[in-house]
This record gives sequence, structure tokens and C-alpha cells, in this order.
Amino acid sequence: MSERLVVIGGVAAGMSAAAKAKRENPELEVVAFEKTHFVSYGACGLPYFLSGEVARVEDLVARTPEQFKKQGITALTRHEVVAVDYENREVTVAALDEGREFKERFDYLVVATGARPVVPDLPGVDLPGVFVLRIPEDGVAIREWMANARRAVIVGGGYVGLEVAEAFRSRGLEVAVVEAEERVLPMVDSELSEIVAEELKKHGVELLTGTRLEAILGEGKVEAVETTAGRLAADLVLLSVGIRPNVELAKSFGVALGPTGAIQVDEKMRTNLEGVFAAGDVAESRHLLTNEPYWLPLGDVANKHGRTAGTVIGGREAAFRGVLGTAITRIFDRAVAVTGLTETEAKKKGFAAKGVLIKSRDRAHYMPGGHPFVVKLVYEEGSGRLLGAQVVGHRNDALRIDAVAALLYKKGTVEDLRALDLAYAPPFSPVWDPLLVAANQAR
Amino acid sequence: MSERLVVIGGVAAGMSAAAKAKRENPELEVVAFEKTHFVSYGACGLPYFLSGEVARVEDLVARTPEQFKKQGITALTRHEVVAVDYENREVTVAALDEGREFKERFDYLVVATGARPVVPDLPGVDLPGVFVLRIPEDGVAIREWMANARRAVIVGGGYVGLEVAEAFRSRGLEVAVVEAEERVLPMVDSELSEIVAEELKKHGVELLTGTRLEAILGEGKVEAVETTAGRLAADLVLLSVGIRPNVELAKSFGVALGPTGAIQVDEKMRTNLEGVFAAGDVAESRHLLTNEPYWLPLGDVANKHGRTAGTVIGGREAAFRGVLGTAITRIFDRAVAVTGLTETEAKKKGFAAKGVLIKSRDRAHYMPGGHPFVVKLVYEEGSGRLLGAQVVGHRNDALRIDAVAALLYKKGTVEDLRALDLAYAPPFSPVWDPLLVAANQAR
Repeated sequence: MSERLVVIGGVAAGMSAAAKAKRENPELEVVAFEKTHFVSYGACGLPYFLSGEVARVEDLVARTPEQFKKQGITALTRHEVVAVDYENREVTVAALDEGREFKERFDYLVVATGARPVVPDLPGVDLPGVFVLRIPEDGVAIREWMANARRAVIVGGGYVGLEVAEAFRSRGLEVAVVEAEERVLPMVDSELSEIVAEELKKHGVELLTGTRLEAILGEGKVEAVETTAGRLAADLVLLSVGIRPNVELAKSFGVALGPTGAIQVDEKMRTNLEGVFAAGDVAESRHLLTNEPYWLPLGDVANKHGRTAGTVIGGREAAFRGVLGTAITRIFDRAVAVTGLTETEAKKKGFAAKGVLIKSRDRAHYMPGGHPFVVKLVYEEGSGRLLGAQVVGHRNDALRIDAVAALLYKKGTVEDLRALDLAYAPPFSPVWDPLLVAANQAR
Repeated sequence: MSERLVVIGGVAAGMSAAAKAKRENPELEVVAFEKTHFVSYGACGLPYFLSGEVARVEDLVARTPEQFKKQGITALTRHEVVAVDYENREVTVAALDEGREFKERFDYLVVATGARPVVPDLPGVDLPGVFVLRIPEDGVAIREWMANARRAVIVGGGYVGLEVAEAFRSRGLEVAVVEAEERVLPMVDSELSEIVAEELKKHGVELLTGTRLEAILGEGKVEAVETTAGRLAADLVLLSVGIRPNVELAKSFGVALGPTGAIQVDEKMRTNLEGVFAAGDVAESRHLLTNEPYWLPLGDVANKHGRTAGTVIGGREAAFRGVLGTAITRIFDRAVAVTGLTETEAKKKGFAAKGVLIKSRDRAHYMPGGHPFVVKLVYEEGSGRLLGAQVVGHRNDALRIDAVAALLYKKGTVEDLRALDLAYAPPFSPVWDPLLVAANQAR
């Protein structure tokens, strides 16, 4: 009898693990259960499905169950694993559309149950017209509702909230963003939040920062939201105030969680239980700067988690080293990117952190069509060790952040950054790359 | 009597040195002599002046002599240093528009005499309508001549030749590129040359590789070129077959050259003569991978050379660590970028080099408007040490090369690249960044 891998959750991490394990060990039986209608979809693309840039929700799917079948992998949608008997190496699966349950044995288990949106415990959150955005079904429901909506309120000014704000504006809706913190995008330092706020306002997004949602109002469907700054009319509300890892199933059979509340794993993505792996948004990573557990529920991390788990299960060496918190997001014509720690985070972690912020351009001064490019560097006083960077630029120019991510991985300093031989030509950069300008100013 | 710095050559390196030295030590007297009509201009921008993207040649100037004067720096154009009396610390300056010479004493000297185009010793190279492109005056002359030209031949398919090919096409000229090597852009490996060649042909550029120029023909002005592949009609010819450092003046007073033929300097940009510095296209750099002297005559390197020399002269510590050969160039809608060694170069240098080439995309598969993105990684077999990378992408996406440049600087491996936490969001990258795809395939 050949060995069997059961994967719980068939999105980024789960299907990466399934595919990689099968490639490494073709003898392995691989079965993945996914409770939604889709496997292997790009959840990060949902805002662009709302904007219409992505025409059909099916376009977000990288590979269908039929395609996985050709690789010898069974991927079942609308199948939810409802219990795990670790002692007997068996899972109980509910076939959601058939109203029946069955059991499936496993030798290896990958827990890739993902995360779910936080829904605040406030009046009216169940009203029709109030949404979260996490799975394709959410996207489809919002796009349908949007057709008759005129005024949207987005609760939460993080990545997803702002990406959806752009999508709603591009479809002609009036948009207000309600954010409890004093600024949007709290994952960057306040100087950059301000630039982002300006960009949002320039594109007609109303911003209410330092404002809490108190209730959602409406008769039969949403009509308004009540906030600490007053009442706002709304015929569509998106709740985007954070997500939590879906750890309940894992906890139920003895999988240990880490300090972040997500599942604790080692570099091979192994949990405390032999043969049980965790990957994706349900699992922790290690932060390479603080060396502490860190929860970074992003699609690229999920894919790497899954690939690592799959490689190990397939019988080959692999390790996921950790994360730097690198991220990028499009805000209308600009992009904001971050890697490492912000100045605020670094100080909180006890570093003698300093920050330097510079405003430059993304091409030579004489080239037409250039745009401002802002860099904030965060580094340790004295040693000059780089701790992080944040940039705001025009679109893909913000990929410059990757050079800093590379240096951070190698424990580089401001001195190293200053010495980098970066790509220069007038259409792509001033003769002093903005990163070098920042490094030159960091003392 | 205060100390005096004399700078020979007032473009990128020279004026960077002048400005930085004065900022570090405001007591210093700083005088720069430049034999052309302009100081502190971006020579790399000349192809974009030809295309018309840059309207006036004056736009290429970062700072005028008047602006330098406000900083307390004397910058004299049309002044050529014709002799150096090192013993007596004196230079002889020819005021070209006044027909007189004078002497100027110095305590510090920066030799920033740049480089000049190679003009092959062939019949007809002096005919009207035959140009090189190096200084603003060249650009002005070509743009004037272009107005009555229909068919241009560019001799040399390196960066400048191809940038000008694009410029000429954008102004409606027929363009043929004649290249002696079997492929264009010999600074990348042949797989990438092919992609570049396709892009050129797609935009109507005729390519004659493996073809040598034998003569330039014409009565009173250029009418054709004779090549090993036959005769080509031409009413404009650009010779772009390489450049050589202007070392003659430096040699004349005892400055030592390095094995590359450019001036030998240490990390502080000091030559063998006390008080004499060299910077920019006339000076060598150290290659960070081979640890050998390397001549990389590019604008960003020149600025760094100059800044380093200026800092040291101004009395503060500074060091220029070296180069990786990082470069980027626009080829119509694409950009080609390179860092480190190509596979060909690495093998020539004795490395057990391997290459891996992958074709990916520059954004998530479901995002509209994506483009192909090609990565070639070069690394050492066994150790996995990274030796270089080359990419072809749409415009600024090619800035991804900078992440590899950062790793190369820190002596990173393929394993390090694989572990990088790079920026991902659907508009900017597939969930597996092309660099990571390449690293995953490198074994």
C-alpha cells in the first residue's frame, strides 16, 4: 500500500504542497480537500476581479481539479475536513453538496486551512450588502451587489481595504474608508501613510482616520454606517479589519500553536506532531530580523511554505528560512512597498533605530514622464545595520525594494547599500539611484 | 593661503569631486576646467536628445557654471588643461576661445578627463555625415544632420548603438546596425542577444551581425558604407565601436596606468602620485567578483568615483569598493539589464560556471497587460555562488536585477536567492517572482 498525503485546504499553500510532493515522489497518493468551489486560486487577485481588470473569477484559478488529476492528484472542492483522528491517522470529510461524510486515511497531513476575516461584533454586520473579501464567492457576491450600489464604505485602511477602494472608484462608486488608527496603511511609517492618503484623496476617496465603526444600519439591507465621526450613507459595506488563522481544527487534535496564534512550525514546515505539516496563512514564519515567530499571511509566503512542505514530504531536503515582511501594493498610480521593520516596529523591538527619508525621482531629471520616488530607510544607530525600507513610487519602480530585501537577508548595513552597483540608465533611474541617495544621507 | 583643488574635466566625475570636496571643506579653493561648452551634463542622455524626448541639449546639464559659482566653485568651460607640472604643482590651461594660456597652481588634482570614441582607421571616416556620439556638441551636430537624412547606418551594436537605433527609428529614419560580432549586445549571453535582436527587427531595425565596416563612401558627404556583407546606402553614419580612456595627459606627468589601460587607483581614488586623484571614465575600478581591475565607463560609476575622491580631498573617510558591471538599457518597449559576469565571461575567468534561463511573466497570470520576463542566472557549480544575472523585461520591471546585484555584493548563493522575501502583489509579479523561479531551477 503506497503512502498517502492528505492536504486540508486546497488554495495556495495546500496545492503547492500537493503538487511538489507528487513531483518529488510520484509513488505518493495525494488527496486535497477544499471547502470552497475553487482550488488553487489567487486570492490576492480578488480586488482586481472587483475592478473588472480580471474578467471572470475563474481566471484567478491557476490549475483546476481536472488539471491536478492529470498530475495524479485528487483535488476535491466543496469537501471540508471536519475532524482529524491523529491516533488512527484518519480524517473525516464532509462532502458539502452531497450531505454525507466519509473517512480518509493519511500518512502525511498538511494543514493549510488558511485564515478568515475578522467580523466585528457590532449591530448590523449580517445585513445584506455587508461583505468581507476573502474567497472567490465573496468576490462574486460583491460584484453582483456593486451593480446596484452607488456609495461604498470600506472599514479598514490596510492593503486590501485600499486595493478595494481603488477598484470601487474605478467602477464609479463613491468611496469612504473608515480606519480606527490615526492613519491609513499602518504597516508603513506615518510619513508614507501621508503620501498614500494624498493619493487616495486625489482619486476621490474620502478618508476618515481615527474613526471607529459603531454599527451598520438598514432595513432589510445596508443603508448607512454609524461611526465615532457620525453617520455615513452606504449601500455597500466592506469589512476589512484583519484576518485570523483558521487553527481550530488543528488545535482539536493536538497541533501546537505559536505565540502569534498561528501554527508553530520548524524550517521544514513540520508541526509538533510527527507527519503533520502546516503551511500558508494558518502557519507562522520566523522573522529574519527579530528571529521571532511572525505571522505573514501573504500569497507568496503561502506558496513557499507549501513548496517546502511538499519537498520534505516528497523525501528531499528543503527549508523555509523565514520572512522579512516584504510587501507591495498598488494605490492608483502609485505603489507602496515595504521590507523589514518600520521605524516604529524597530523601536518597539528594542533596536536603536534611526530613519532617514528622501524624495527623489524615478529617472534622470531631463527625461520626460518621470515621477517622484520616496525612500525611507530604517537602520541601527552605531552599527549601521539595515533594519528596513519603505518606498513609494510609480508602479513597478517600487520593485527597487527588492534590493533592500536582498541586503536585509544577508544582514547588510547602510554602508553596503551605499556601495551597491545598481542598474542605471536615464529612462530608469537618476544617476544616483534613490536607494543610494537615501544610503548617502543615513549617518 | 588656502589649499586649492584643480579638477581636469568638468563632467560627471569631475564636478562630483569638485562639489563634494567643497561641501566637506568649505575653505578649499576649487577650480574645474572643461574643454567642451558644458559642465556637469548627463552624457548618457544624448540618445534621448536625438530621439527628441529631451528637447534641448542644455536640459542634460545638471548644474551650470553659474550654479557652481554660488557654491563657491569656479567651473570654466572651453578651458583645456594642456600640461601638468607635477614637481611645481602647476597646470597649464588653454583658454580655447581666447587663444591664450595660463598657469594655475594646485595642492590636489583630480584627473577626470573621461574617454573618447574609437574611430576606426578606414577610408571616409572624416566625411561630413559621419559622427560619433560622446559630447553634447556631437548630439547637436547629429540632430541637425538628421533633419535631412533618411537612411542611417550605425556601426556597433552595443548599448549606445542600440539606443541610437531606437532614437533614429522614432524620428522616422531607416536604420541598419552593422556589428562585427556574431550578435548584438555582446555584454549579455547569446540567448539574450537573440531576444534583443527580435525586438530590434520588430521595430524595423535592419541587423547585419558578423559584418565588418570596410570603408565609408561619398563625394563631399557620406553616401554609403562598404561592409564585408556588401554596400549599404547611408546618408548618416554613427560610429559606435567603443571608447578609450583619455590617459595621455596623466601619463605625461607620471601617473601610472593599470592593466586595463585606464588609470590605476586605490579605493580612495588616489593614483600613484601623492595628491593626484583620478575619477570617472579615465579611471579603473575593481571588479567585486574577480577582484581584478576592471574598466566600467558608466555615468553612475563616474559619479561615485567623483564623490569618493571629493570626500577624501575634503578630509573625510570614503572608499569606492568596486563594481559588478551592473547596467541596464532600453530597447524600444523592453529593457535589458545585467549584473556580474555573463556565463561566457565567468568561464573565461576560470569559474566552473553554469547558467539557467527561465521565461516567466512580470505579473500574475490573470492580470491584463503583462509581459514576458526572461531571467538568466549564472552561478558556480558546487558552491552555488552567484556570479551574475541578466534579465529582459518590459521597461522598469528589469530593475529586478538590483536584487541580484545586492546579493552579488554580499557574496550570496543561489540558495540565498531562493530564500529571498521579494515584493509580491498581482500587478507587480507572479506569486513566484521570476528571480525565484530561476533560483528554484538552478541546481
